[in-house]
Amino acid sequence: MASTSPEPSAAAAAAAAVAETGCSVQIRRLEATDHEKGFVALLSQLSACPDLTASEFAACFADLAALGDDHVILVAEDPAAPESRILATGCLFVERKFLRGGGKVGHVEDVVVDAAARGRGLGLRVVRRLVEIAKEAGCYKVILDCTPELRAYYAKCGFVEKGVQMAIYF
Amino acid sequence: MASTSPEPSAAAAAAAAVAETGCSVQIRRLEATDHEKGFVALLSQLSACPDLTASEFAACFADLAALGDDHVILVAEDPAAPESRILATGCLFVERKFLRGGGKVGHVEDVVVDAAARGRGLGLRVVRRLVEIAKEAGCYKVILDCTPELRAYYAKCGFVEKGVQMAIYF
Repeated sequence: MASTSPEPSAAAAAAAAVAETGCSVQIRRLEATDHEKGFVALLSQLSACPDLTASEFAACFADLAALGDDHVILVAEDPAAPESRILATGCLFVERKFLRGGGKVGHVEDVVVDAAARGRGLGLRVVRRLVEIAKEAGCYKVILDCTPELRAYYAKCGFVEKGVQMAIYF
Repeated sequence: MASTSPEPSAAAAAAAAVAETGCSVQIRRLEATDHEKGFVALLSQLSACPDLTASEFAACFADLAALGDDHVILVAEDPAAPESRILATGCLFVERKFLRGGGKVGHVEDVVVDAAARGRGLGLRVVRRLVEIAKEAGCYKVILDCTPELRAYYAKCGFVEKGVQMAIYF
């Protein structure tokens, strides 16, 4: 693509995405101000997630931000919507190993789409971007755990069933 | 237990373990010198794991040690054996979340027992200790992925099947 600028602006990239997908929802990294946009309430649709105060959220955000590119939380938001709300989210963290010559594995966690925004492919867009980030980070694989009902959903992103997840809850 | 010392020495703890289990194998944290004790070769029994030079091993060890108690590798070694070899290993890393009020999840990874040392319960001892460490660290759960054939093995440590593992290999 010919361009007078080496990198398109965020606004131009958003406009291009709208033109391509017919959808104004943008996928971006979690920001500290997303506490006010219902991020924690969205997570509560996935699992037990008591609300966090602004300072608790800020502390948790800072802890995770300190992990740099080894911990990425993406969110979906529609800047054109009358109210700013987080519509979907997903997380990637990178595990380092001795295996594979000091290899890296991407773990996808905490994928959830707001009940009112399902069926629009937002979760898949988030997951596909997380997979791209894992690949760019040099991971040799990316893995996730899900219920058996979600196998077909994640297959749309290229995931194949690999094993069983076992757990102990304390 | 009455004791003249508030904490038993490592030697006393080892002696007590031998008395209790009839086994002189000790479970301890990975050390930088374990490169010379076949640690990487042991991992290669689990998955692709090319040998690391001493400096590569040291760099990887330092990267992981920098994660502090969020990344623990345990190894099993028999100090009474004529040759110092790592007989089993397992890893725990701690993931931090926004879920559960800034909760923590322990991930057990890379559990392997040397082919010549299987059937002695060393893997179970490693995994049980990793689970204890996860609990002590305040994790609300600990999870792992395995092949279906290993369900019963991990059930001995208290794990129950929770879901399916999906993967993409790059």
